[in-house]
Amino acid sequence: MSTKAVFYHAGCPVCIDAERQFADSLDQSKFDVEIVHLGDAPERLAEAEEGGVKSIPAFVIQGKAFHINFGASLADLK
Amino acid sequence: MSTKAVFYHAGCPVCIDAERQFADSLDQSKFDVEIVHLGDAPERLAEAEEGGVKSIPAFVIQGKAFHINFGASLADLK
Repeated sequence: MSTKAVFYHAGCPVCIDAERQFADSLDQSKFDVEIVHLGDAPERLAEAEEGGVKSIPAFVIQGKAFHINFGASLADLK
Repeated sequence: MSTKAVFYHAGCPVCIDAERQFADSLDQSKFDVEIVHLGDAPERLAEAEEGGVKSIPAFVIQGKAFHINFGASLADLK
């Protein structure tokens, strides 16, 4: 069974790099990757925050947040 | 042809999480992942620094550094 991985971003250049190198490149037999653009889906900000996301781009995998570099803080997207 | 991805870490708990979720999980048909423990291979600190690594755990892929969360600064490993 594949693990759910949610990638949160907001279209920033740092986000695009992270999306290309990680979100698009995880082994699809291991991960079911969902890509969420928080600018387009602001209703998912609370869920990202609950997952421990402080800034984007970030993944939430099995309840843990993994921030990749720094594009923008979650607070700035509200 | 697969892309070279170097994962630098130093055995910290944050590093182990990142290794499990990313270094071990990138699509092996796309990436040739090398895992470098900078505690065991301090001679590679300069190379990591040249790749733009400021803290570990981090990847360097195609000349760009991707820091995943924060385990320790590179300066603290010298």
